[in-house]
Amino acid sequence: MDDRTGQRIVAETARRPENRYGNRPTMKDVAARAGVGLKTVSRVVNGEPGVTPDTERRVQEAIDALGFRRNDSARVLRKGRTASIGLVLEDLADPFYGPLSRAVEEVARAHGALLINGSSAEDPEREQELVLALCARRVDGLVVIPAGDDHRYLEPEIKAGVATVFVDRPAGQIDADVVLSDSFGGARDGVTHLIDHGHRRIGFIGDMPRIHTAAERLRGYRAAMEDAGIAVEPAWMSLGVTDPLRVRDAAEEMLSGDSPVTAIFAGNNRVTVTVVRVLAEHGRPVALVGFDDIELADLLQPGVTVVAQDAAALGRTAADRLFRQLDGSLLTPERIELPTRLITRGSGELPPSP
Amino acid sequence: MDDRTGQRIVAETARRPENRYGNRPTMKDVAARAGVGLKTVSRVVNGEPGVTPDTERRVQEAIDALGFRRNDSARVLRKGRTASIGLVLEDLADPFYGPLSRAVEEVARAHGALLINGSSAEDPEREQELVLALCARRVDGLVVIPAGDDHRYLEPEIKAGVATVFVDRPAGQIDADVVLSDSFGGARDGVTHLIDHGHRRIGFIGDMPRIHTAAERLRGYRAAMEDAGIAVEPAWMSLGVTDPLRVRDAAEEMLSGDSPVTAIFAGNNRVTVTVVRVLAEHGRPVALVGFDDIELADLLQPGVTVVAQDAAALGRTAADRLFRQLDGSLLTPERIELPTRLITRGSGELPPSP
Repeated sequence: MDDRTGQRIVAETARRPENRYGNRPTMKDVAARAGVGLKTVSRVVNGEPGVTPDTERRVQEAIDALGFRRNDSARVLRKGRTASIGLVLEDLADPFYGPLSRAVEEVARAHGALLINGSSAEDPEREQELVLALCARRVDGLVVIPAGDDHRYLEPEIKAGVATVFVDRPAGQIDADVVLSDSFGGARDGVTHLIDHGHRRIGFIGDMPRIHTAAERLRGYRAAMEDAGIAVEPAWMSLGVTDPLRVRDAAEEMLSGDSPVTAIFAGNNRVTVTVVRVLAEHGRPVALVGFDDIELADLLQPGVTVVAQDAAALGRTAADRLFRQLDGSLLTPERIELPTRLITRGSGELPPSP
Repeated sequence: MDDRTGQRIVAETARRPENRYGNRPTMKDVAARAGVGLKTVSRVVNGEPGVTPDTERRVQEAIDALGFRRNDSARVLRKGRTASIGLVLEDLADPFYGPLSRAVEEVARAHGALLINGSSAEDPEREQELVLALCARRVDGLVVIPAGDDHRYLEPEIKAGVATVFVDRPAGQIDADVVLSDSFGGARDGVTHLIDHGHRRIGFIGDMPRIHTAAERLRGYRAAMEDAGIAVEPAWMSLGVTDPLRVRDAAEEMLSGDSPVTAIFAGNNRVTVTVVRVLAEHGRPVALVGFDDIELADLLQPGVTVVAQDAAALGRTAADRLFRQLDGSLLTPERIELPTRLITRGSGELPPSP
């Protein structure tokens, strides 16, 4: 039994580290076992020249026998770069962020960097805490999906050389690289599509208005309605948390009363999933277009028409820009907007129900 | 313009760090500006006693003015604990790992620890590389969803006090805490459910056989068939990557020929999604039970009957055990199996089609 954590090690004795105190072996231990000086061990560990092959082999054997591992915390202090980048998400469990995270990780890996993740749970304070914790661990760069709208707290980090790219939502109060989907244009296209299919009473259910994407999609909805000369009634718009109960209430309210909506535009994947459930229970057919694609949307009856964003492209573009900042080839912060794509599957092509 | 990354800082001049070289301000800079000794700054930064309120205020003002941040890499070297844990996943984009990751993060946060994530992409070498990279950054503990089946490379780390819990799949060649779903029992229940609805020719499509959960679920399938006295034909079993093309081929092959299967048991969520697509295009109704719940399964026609695992409970249980290892209250590695739950929605209750 190990005396500290109680983990019993089932292993060949030969592979066991030979220190008896549960402490990590040091370079000094390696030097003593290999019968060489500390500087020689340091050269081998750091891949520096000036060591004969025979000595290198002896040091390597001592390293293997003792289970020595270099402490990268000490390395960071010496060299400045850590070959790691941080990713601050909004919610680890939102399927939209899965492909985005994986794309960032693939780019990081291609650059030999480790990805460190964390989520803000849509809380600006938690975002700041997490970002600064990552900076305190000296990540080389940060990809941030911001929860807050004031990022001046990042100025000292950016000044100190931490590369920074915001994705999905822009930075607040600082000038930084930003990679977004065209939320305004996508929502306008989706709502125009409903209008083209004869709808005039169209509801909009979105996320909290302080979230950039929610505000932009609402703006796209309003623009499409205005272009068509439709006066939007306040009862047709509902913004708030994407909790299923809140969304359900909003949808049911829009669908009841004297002049119910005949179509709904859902502001993101979480809203769409709940609206699909409400409509499945509803008596009359109601048209639906959702922002973000959802899995199995094509197999529902009707299939769900969506405005799809390319989450992987967002992550890839953001990470590419991050590494271009780090190699010095990117000098001016830009705002990049990626296009969205309307995918028609049936729900958005339903005519207004009388 | 910043001279290093090209990030233009749009900020009040008063909040700008006052060093001109793009380097991070040090405690020495803080001491000079506050007109106090280095030890005093260190006390304030580390929250140690022995500083008057007035001096503390002066130091804090200097910290704010300079944008000083403590370097946690230096801290690690001094104190040994980093208040961070690592999570090694199989695939950041698999929806099964979303709730699991979030649950681990919530427990970590409740213990004041930062969660560091990475994914192995089902590659044992990449798993090892990532685990050791996290250990080199001195995480206090690791939650690992293993891709490989030999974890002796972790012995020096465990010996050095890194708390370790494996989740979803067991550790290989070492004795460690493991938190699993009851894959065997869940699959046996799901297949028995199909047998109870009159099926005898039942196909099994699963993940690669070297993955523990895939092997266990196949074992559950075989046990259910044997209990019912059904001789399993080799053509009814297909294990391999969960790539949609591979799964589609496997399903189409089982559904064709002289004696096609009348029901399919899908070994995980990725397989289920593809089988649902294949069955939607298929002429005759075919029964389906899938391991893992999938979003919107209830809204498909028919609804998809599943053997659901509780991904959040897996993550929570694993993280709880990790922190109990760290506080010394957990002394013996255990294997914990969480139960699964059969959710009937229609697809698993279809009778055999002639």
